[in-house]
Amino acid sequence: MRILDLATIRQALQGLDLLPLIESGFEAYSAGRANVPPIGELLMDEGEVHIKYGCISGDPYYVIKVASSFHANPARGLPAGDGLMLLCSQSTGEVVAVLHDKAHLTDLRTAVAGAIAAKYLAPKAVECIGIMGTGVQARLQLTALRDVVACRDVLVWGRNPQRLQDYASDMADSGFNIETSVDAGDIAARCNLIVTNTAATAPILRAGQIRPGTHISAMGSDTPDKQELDAGILAGADLVVADSIEQCHLRGEIAQALNTGKIDASGLLEIGDIIGGRSPGRTEPAQISVFDSTGVAVQDMMIARAVFEAIDEV
Amino acid sequence: MRILDLATIRQALQGLDLLPLIESGFEAYSAGRANVPPIGELLMDEGEVHIKYGCISGDPYYVIKVASSFHANPARGLPAGDGLMLLCSQSTGEVVAVLHDKAHLTDLRTAVAGAIAAKYLAPKAVECIGIMGTGVQARLQLTALRDVVACRDVLVWGRNPQRLQDYASDMADSGFNIETSVDAGDIAARCNLIVTNTAATAPILRAGQIRPGTHISAMGSDTPDKQELDAGILAGADLVVADSIEQCHLRGEIAQALNTGKIDASGLLEIGDIIGGRSPGRTEPAQISVFDSTGVAVQDMMIARAVFEAIDEV
Repeated sequence: MRILDLATIRQALQGLDLLPLIESGFEAYSAGRANVPPIGELLMDEGEVHIKYGCISGDPYYVIKVASSFHANPARGLPAGDGLMLLCSQSTGEVVAVLHDKAHLTDLRTAVAGAIAAKYLAPKAVECIGIMGTGVQARLQLTALRDVVACRDVLVWGRNPQRLQDYASDMADSGFNIETSVDAGDIAARCNLIVTNTAATAPILRAGQIRPGTHISAMGSDTPDKQELDAGILAGADLVVADSIEQCHLRGEIAQALNTGKIDASGLLEIGDIIGGRSPGRTEPAQISVFDSTGVAVQDMMIARAVFEAIDEV
Repeated sequence: MRILDLATIRQALQGLDLLPLIESGFEAYSAGRANVPPIGELLMDEGEVHIKYGCISGDPYYVIKVASSFHANPARGLPAGDGLMLLCSQSTGEVVAVLHDKAHLTDLRTAVAGAIAAKYLAPKAVECIGIMGTGVQARLQLTALRDVVACRDVLVWGRNPQRLQDYASDMADSGFNIETSVDAGDIAARCNLIVTNTAATAPILRAGQIRPGTHISAMGSDTPDKQELDAGILAGADLVVADSIEQCHLRGEIAQALNTGKIDASGLLEIGDIIGGRSPGRTEPAQISVFDSTGVAVQDMMIARAVFEAIDEV
């Protein structure tokens, strides 16, 4: 059993092109080649931990990913999240490696999912990228968009002006032109590719605000309680795309909208089917599309295997 | 994050008295002080992995235990099981230690559960201990009984005479007088404390064989498919005791018997309630009692914490 620390993992990541890897994971999942049991969840007084696990048929490994989120940590000078991935043999069961990534691989594979959604669902001509939220994921999402979107103009929304300013200065060398706003309406008015990255439990975007030809990737909500988009946005969208339809029945924006009765499940699409060409993606410039990310274990499987296999090449 | 290997874990175990620890875990569980989500399970072509996890209110840690079982491993010279336990902080979520016990702690805490069942449910005068199965657990169960049962006469059953002979010679210095039999009827006829430790998927003991005054601990079945006891044994028993009534609705002997309709759930008892004095255990010498062990995460929590805290004292 090998123990890989974050520094080693970061080094291995440098040579990896994650987008095609994560794409192939989603494709395998939607094609029924992945075995992904329901997410394990332990709720405690001060935080929660999620366990995502599964395997892809024919792969050498199965993966168990543990990710915790403890809200009081930042006030103590600790990151809110910790986590690790166990890479195990599908032929002997043995734990081959512990990737102690402290949730970094989860952050990355989530950012790449946003880029994949933009690749297949964003309008061809992106006028301005809207980033909602100012945390780690809001930064990684923008970075991941660099390879799939030509637009370099960005409007970032957040509630806290200081955090907006930090975002803009931290991302000053990212190659994007960054403006900020504390008004979500500005995002909807100016941006036709919007990525939401908050832990909101009430909508930060309303149905009436969204213009035709907009794509929204809702990355923040991965539990039954969190919500970033008004259910009316999903009801009015031409394309509502889940990372996992099964998971989105229980978690995320789709679960919220299903609960209101404003959408029904029959029209839902899955990103892996679009990647695999079994479902069309965006077919008209004026369509409104929504991608709902809840985080699927296939993303963890793909990144964990790739990092492990890259270690020996570093 | 500390990594504890099996040698370190074995050393820490030497100073530990596990029985009261595991007892207090069961007691906390039955008293509602433990948060134990449903078992995670991943079934693959060549094996399976179970994830048991949870926490006890007020404890400093939560525990995630991963245990795999791959049936073709022994033919390759590998143990069938591998596993580890993650000991994590309930206040920050951080993974404090990885106990790479290779399933040894699971084996031990299961053996101790058998001893606890015997302590509370076996008849006072044990005439002969019946051990069914010849593997690792069949050995550990007998060892764990040493402290709770005065009887030193043992009859061991197995299908394979060579493995029976190996058991008898390996356990020659255990302090028990060991006889063997390939006839399960001998066990039922001579033993009034019987411990079953097989991976059987069809009953190895029948209802008509069991004499009044017998206690059976069914340790082997921990899945919906495995079964060691005829449902009629449970139907005829005066006491049917689960390690977790919730889990036993889905797994083990009780699940099998419930499915036949021969028992109903209303009469089920839980070992932690007996330990806590909230349910009576055996009250009459002639009662037939059955303990059904499916393995509860509280056992893992108790042993993982105790081992970790003992490490620095070694």
